Amino acid sequence: MNTEQAETVFVIFGSTGDLAKRKLFPSIYNLYRKGNLTDKFAVLGLGRRNWDNETLRDVVKESIVTEHGQDAASEAESFLNHFSYMPFDVTNRESYQQLGDQLAILDETFQIPGNRIFYMAMAPEFFGLIAQSINNEGLKETKGWSRLVIEKPFGTDLKSAIQLNEEIRKAFSEDEIYRIDHYLGKEMVQNIQVIRFANGIFGPLWNNRNIANIQVTSSEQLGVEGRGSYYEKSGALRDMVQNHMLQMVSLLAMDVPLQLSTDDIRSEKIKVLRALRPVMGETISKNVVRAQYSEGTMNGERVKGYLQEENVSETSHTETYVAARLMIDNHVWAGVPFYIRTGKRMAVKSTKIVVEFKELPLNLYRKEEKQTGPNLLIIHIQPDEGITIVLNGKRIGSADTTPVHLEYRHDSEDRVNTPEAYERLLFDCMMGDATNFAHWDEVSLSWSLVDAISNAWEKSDKVLASYEAGSMGPKEADQLLEADGNSWWPVENM
Amino acid sequence: MNTEQAETVFVIFGSTGDLAKRKLFPSIYNLYRKGNLTDKFAVLGLGRRNWDNETLRDVVKESIVTEHGQDAASEAESFLNHFSYMPFDVTNRESYQQLGDQLAILDETFQIPGNRIFYMAMAPEFFGLIAQSINNEGLKETKGWSRLVIEKPFGTDLKSAIQLNEEIRKAFSEDEIYRIDHYLGKEMVQNIQVIRFANGIFGPLWNNRNIANIQVTSSEQLGVEGRGSYYEKSGALRDMVQNHMLQMVSLLAMDVPLQLSTDDIRSEKIKVLRALRPVMGETISKNVVRAQYSEGTMNGERVKGYLQEENVSETSHTETYVAARLMIDNHVWAGVPFYIRTGKRMAVKSTKIVVEFKELPLNLYRKEEKQTGPNLLIIHIQPDEGITIVLNGKRIGSADTTPVHLEYRHDSEDRVNTPEAYERLLFDCMMGDATNFAHWDEVSLSWSLVDAISNAWEKSDKVLASYEAGSMGPKEADQLLEADGNSWWPVENM
Repeated sequence: MNTEQAETVFVIFGSTGDLAKRKLFPSIYNLYRKGNLTDKFAVLGLGRRNWDNETLRDVVKESIVTEHGQDAASEAESFLNHFSYMPFDVTNRESYQQLGDQLAILDETFQIPGNRIFYMAMAPEFFGLIAQSINNEGLKETKGWSRLVIEKPFGTDLKSAIQLNEEIRKAFSEDEIYRIDHYLGKEMVQNIQVIRFANGIFGPLWNNRNIANIQVTSSEQLGVEGRGSYYEKSGALRDMVQNHMLQMVSLLAMDVPLQLSTDDIRSEKIKVLRALRPVMGETISKNVVRAQYSEGTMNGERVKGYLQEENVSETSHTETYVAARLMIDNHVWAGVPFYIRTGKRMAVKSTKIVVEFKELPLNLYRKEEKQTGPNLLIIHIQPDEGITIVLNGKRIGSADTTPVHLEYRHDSEDRVNTPEAYERLLFDCMMGDATNFAHWDEVSLSWSLVDAISNAWEKSDKVLASYEAGSMGPKEADQLLEADGNSWWPVENM
Repeated sequence: MNTEQAETVFVIFGSTGDLAKRKLFPSIYNLYRKGNLTDKFAVLGLGRRNWDNETLRDVVKESIVTEHGQDAASEAESFLNHFSYMPFDVTNRESYQQLGDQLAILDETFQIPGNRIFYMAMAPEFFGLIAQSINNEGLKETKGWSRLVIEKPFGTDLKSAIQLNEEIRKAFSEDEIYRIDHYLGKEMVQNIQVIRFANGIFGPLWNNRNIANIQVTSSEQLGVEGRGSYYEKSGALRDMVQNHMLQMVSLLAMDVPLQLSTDDIRSEKIKVLRALRPVMGETISKNVVRAQYSEGTMNGERVKGYLQEENVSETSHTETYVAARLMIDNHVWAGVPFYIRTGKRMAVKSTKIVVEFKELPLNLYRKEEKQTGPNLLIIHIQPDEGITIVLNGKRIGSADTTPVHLEYRHDSEDRVNTPEAYERLLFDCMMGDATNFAHWDEVSLSWSLVDAISNAWEKSDKVLASYEAGSMGPKEADQLLEADGNSWWPVENM
């Protein structure tokens, strides 16, 4: 990244929390270290706790040491001087006034031209209130720009999302709102567009004449990890499908934008979401599988089932796994299933896209006993990053064919230098580039689709499926694809 | 290979020569070792020298030890018992009568049902005489089959090739003649068909709408290596282009055959040769470059120029390098140049095919200063074997694109087990599969094309170009592609 640099104050609501410590501070440090921040910046941490500047700086220093080792700590001293902390009560008008005074001081101290990023790294119930208070107390009235960064969840259904959006839109315009979907900051998710739009060979192939189906998997090994009470209200559908999974589907299915501008790209992604066939009523059981993990074995150890987790109701119907067949009713994709699946406590941690191309109508090398396989394009998103193409080649010393894997993996040097998703997204926000953030239309369309599924589930008498912890999901998810004559491609050793 | 096994006598004309020792004996041993030869076989070596069975067996043993180590020698004892030697005068009728007697004995000894492979591993001037003598002396009159295997060169121009063909056709039918082009026995040359015809993604791409050009390189580091007097009469055009290079072009450009049968495949290859635009008269200088190597440095050592080599005339016009632009005037390939180049004393030893796909008419990621590259399919034939696809991907931590190489290389185990070209071709011949041998129509069409070039050269007053030993050829070969706005892709690090 070697672009014009922005000078700004980062105001972090929830700076004592986990996200700030694990993601934001290290990302800001990396921006600084790589020269993507000038000295004209400040980070102001806010929170209910009675910390002072030193407490915050210690936390930041610790997060740097964790990532970069003890040596980085001494080099980071001048960086830490840009950090300060202010105890803050989001419901108290006086807090905002004090914040205004403090921001003026920071602008003065660090020669910052009034640019402000307000980052909501906290519980969502106060997002609306904070946004409006920022506006009401005049904190946006500077010579520079103001931007609001909002973490997920953006609502818990369409209705609450609309309400939240209306509240923040009273204070910030759509242009000023940066809705984080950290998947959009991932190297290989950003690569989807490049792979699709910068390669002559994929141009003619990227459509329903040549693609049989597309599979998007995002599997976790972790369970709910003490976040039972949050997860009970969320579930995999809201936690993963509404945002990350549908974003990946949009990027895979979007038409070529006129230009690589934020508006053009978002507009094409929105068209995909509009063309997604709603899954509702009786079609639900044929198109969506929900499941909960039961007790099982992972890495040789027994792990609890979901219903035995802390802060989870013994009769919970919350899904920890979702698989779905999505159909996109437009000219390009009619007839091509997009299969998605995501879950916790699965056998492997893996986010992967498999594009399965159609087989030749007549393949001279196909024999009854040994079918040749279809060609695949695999985009490895995490933890591995890379691209694989699977072709049929000649089996050595024989006239038979065998699948051959053409691989590109980032080498270790690349991996070290790959910016973390949050680092990218913070940089984009500084630069005013909202391409990799979710537009309201995307959010609302996603919620419509997800709400339809939720509603159908509520009305359905079909019980939740079950899968053993440490497996790749319930058999119902396999049956979903079998009904189309397909099957999930493995996410390991591909 | 796990096919019905043939029982045969291999009669090797020229068994004291280099080809027999370096290629044929080790290949026959490998067939035996892998179980592709039963005990019902015999090898009868013929030659002018006054060897006996033991002399031949020692040579065979030595060639086995060279390849497989000393341990193989003791295991090979029973194998060596199948070998015998007979001094032979190809011009003497008595020799053929003795040969007939000896063959009867071998059939008897090894229970061979009269199958005979007559392998011409010697100077071509006697091919016609030998073939006719075999027939005249009744050596083909057995209960089994007889096949004639002929090494290159098959003639030195169309006229001599026709004459040779007429002579051998008096004795053997086209079905019985196996014209060796050892490139057709190479693993990755045989893979060209599989890559093309077993992969859904290449079906729609393999034509002039999606391919910009195809480059076929076969470069050697060796010079003429004491074979100056042979090479003076041959040159790169006859030695490499007439056979190997045009065979690879045929395989790359052929239409999909109806079936994978010998006749269907050969018939499609012949159609390509018929559609090749003849290069003649004034078009020669724009389409073909011939050159000779001059003194240069290879691996840090000075090496002679061609004119200083032994048994080479000081005023020789023999080309040691040829590059050509070939155009195929049919519906599929019109407008797509096939660039070929081959030469001695070049910087690297490499046989490689690069298929350059057309770039997108509008590539959103193309910027004036940094053009994205085209997609490439690279087939590595030797010394490396494998497939590479070059795509444009995202440059890590940046919005720019960069070429990424998706690679498949045979692993070391595969390489050890890869049959040598001669091993395959001998096996195919035993099995009566002539697919990977040159049909007379291919040979004659190739000679027509090559003769046209030779004749144009003779009439042309343009001098031979020159390239330094250790370089990748003359600048004229670069200019050949530059005239089309193209350039040679490197054969190293691709």
